[in-house]
Amino acid sequence: MTDDFRFTLRARDGGARLGEISTPRGAIRTPAFMPVGTAATVKAMYPGQVRELGADVVLGNVYHLMLRPGAERVAELGGLHKFMNWPHNILTDSGGFQVMSLAKLRKLDENGVTFQSHIDGSRHQLTPERSMEIQRLLGSDIQMQFDECVKLPCSHEEAERAMRLSLRWAERSRKAFGEQPGRACFGIVQGGAERDLRIESARALADMDFGGMAVGGLAVGEPQEVMLAMIETVMPHLPEHKPHYLMGVGTPDDLLQSVKRGIDMFDCVMPTRAGRHGLAYTRWGKLNLKNARHAEDPRPLDPTSSCPAARDYSRAYLHHLVRCQEILGMMLLTWVNLAYYQDLMAGAREAISAGRYDDYLAQVKDNWTRDGEPG
Amino acid sequence: MTDDFRFTLRARDGGARLGEISTPRGAIRTPAFMPVGTAATVKAMYPGQVRELGADVVLGNVYHLMLRPGAERVAELGGLHKFMNWPHNILTDSGGFQVMSLAKLRKLDENGVTFQSHIDGSRHQLTPERSMEIQRLLGSDIQMQFDECVKLPCSHEEAERAMRLSLRWAERSRKAFGEQPGRACFGIVQGGAERDLRIESARALADMDFGGMAVGGLAVGEPQEVMLAMIETVMPHLPEHKPHYLMGVGTPDDLLQSVKRGIDMFDCVMPTRAGRHGLAYTRWGKLNLKNARHAEDPRPLDPTSSCPAARDYSRAYLHHLVRCQEILGMMLLTWVNLAYYQDLMAGAREAISAGRYDDYLAQVKDNWTRDGEPG
Ligand SMILES: [Zn+2]
Ligand SMILES: [Zn+2]
Repeated sequence: MTDDFRFTLRARDGGARLGEISTPRGAIRTPAFMPVGTAATVKAMYPGQVRELGADVVLGNVYHLMLRPGAERVAELGGLHKFMNWPHNILTDSGGFQVMSLAKLRKLDENGVTFQSHIDGSRHQLTPERSMEIQRLLGSDIQMQFDECVKLPCSHEEAERAMRLSLRWAERSRKAFGEQPGRACFGIVQGGAERDLRIESARALADMDFGGMAVGGLAVGEPQEVMLAMIETVMPHLPEHKPHYLMGVGTPDDLLQSVKRGIDMFDCVMPTRAGRHGLAYTRWGKLNLKNARHAEDPRPLDPTSSCPAARDYSRAYLHHLVRCQEILGMMLLTWVNLAYYQDLMAGAREAISAGRYDDYLAQVKDNWTRDGEPG
Repeated sequence: MTDDFRFTLRARDGGARLGEISTPRGAIRTPAFMPVGTAATVKAMYPGQVRELGADVVLGNVYHLMLRPGAERVAELGGLHKFMNWPHNILTDSGGFQVMSLAKLRKLDENGVTFQSHIDGSRHQLTPERSMEIQRLLGSDIQMQFDECVKLPCSHEEAERAMRLSLRWAERSRKAFGEQPGRACFGIVQGGAERDLRIESARALADMDFGGMAVGGLAVGEPQEVMLAMIETVMPHLPEHKPHYLMGVGTPDDLLQSVKRGIDMFDCVMPTRAGRHGLAYTRWGKLNLKNARHAEDPRPLDPTSSCPAARDYSRAYLHHLVRCQEILGMMLLTWVNLAYYQDLMAGAREAISAGRYDDYLAQVKDNWTRDGEPG
């Protein structure tokens, strides 16, 4: 424990890094996967379960929380940690991404974005200053700069305009964040799929006083090789003594490939969303429990898993729950998937520590080809 | 533990009874509330949680399970206990009630009911023999006779016809049940709101060799006093050395009033359904968490509850989850409600044992008038 926000790099294995962020809330072991708690809940999970899986930090969404229940209300109730019964670290996004993907009637200018709520049509404004104020009210430990994220593919011109705007918003965000002992503000590299823009963005942000560096605007429709190429392009320009966070990514393979290239932190709705739609991530590959081939299968998903949901319920039962759209099916599969994502990162940390990350990656990928059949 | 199905009456306090059913699966402490596990899951609860709340038995629904996943499939997979990861006692209803309330294009004759599934329109038949076969395939510890349940109000003539048919089906059900060591078959008293018919039904069933006696066809729209009057009418004609089960009932007050009149077992979807719709049952009364008055309330539902869901989350947070239709809201409120129902029965058992059941009833009812405010 510490009073400051600190990042310590403990080991390297090729490009992969083993590290630890420490804050007054506790340690975040990296590489880290952060479960997404959109509306102040990691969907279909009790917070104690999320912690028991090994998650050191969860994500909160500014866009959702500003609409419901509102940042001022959360502050009056003692902050987001207390509100959602999660005393560990919380990272909040800045709202930029979701304003672009969810809100209606957006109007963007130099100052920020005005938009209508996708829930009730009420009008709101987000600026760098307001986004940082919301994150401060929520009390989050890691606060993201407000940025503009473009959809891929997009023109060089459009990517450049958004990247430059995001840089100006980065300065305003950093200034609005001010000094908050024990907390950090992260900058976000933008620039679409353009190498020159990504480098310019990374260099400019590296000169600002951020506690960590995020790579944004990826995994928005482009092939994995484009994403990995952008990470490779950007990495030499990210300060090595700061944590590197790849936003909104991704599949288990995306995670492992990105760790190999120097990424320390991830968040993604994939494991939780997939769990609510009948999909299970296991060591032996991804399974669609809706599929009739599981209907009479008495085997659990993974008999040697440490996760009760993967170990104590048959595939036939999970199939039944998914078919009947039972809440317990969503609860069990979300649990399975988050356990798998956490195990994947724990394995990566162990492998980096032992200097055998490439072997780990090869072994894990080989297991995925088994189509759900334990090896 | 025992090899037989046994019921032991341990104490009486006025009409209220303290008892214990023992089966090879374990003890069922009575008065008992049985959470409903319609489709082989107590909705929004892990089975281990249901057990930890003190439930000794859960209910399975023949109608739902015959449609999905099918009784023969459950049998192949090792029976319902194994399928749903609930090694304790299970009671199954006979399907009669739900065929009447859910199925389409029903055709009833002396032999049974043919109907179409409400899910996919597929055609099925339920007879006393098929219902008992399904319950045997599921492997349930307490199996209910197949009966016809009429909606109230209904004419004397209609209630009489259905009661007589149910008696003939009772004989066929009992015969089809045969001898299943450690398990019991229960008869069901019918007769609508007609005293003479209820008495005739109870007397006829008492002469058959059932392991327990249920009262069916109540809490189907009639006022509470009609229900209680029917219980009082029937009770002198129920064998006292057999458990008395009031089917599909009810509110906390219904339960306590019925215990006072000699009922030992209950099942109802109320606590679980209410939990999925934002309603909380607490010692201090029933709360609608959707209500805006909870939006800024930092207090938990019950700070001294043994249930984490009632103790560790603010009303403001529960309100937020309910408003956002978050699954965690359903999970927490279902947990709160089932905990309350189990606590209510545990308190009743303690009070009967101490000979102060009427005081208990008065005290509990007084607390309910507090509108959610801890006393
Ligand atoms: Zn994602
Ligand atoms: Zn009911």
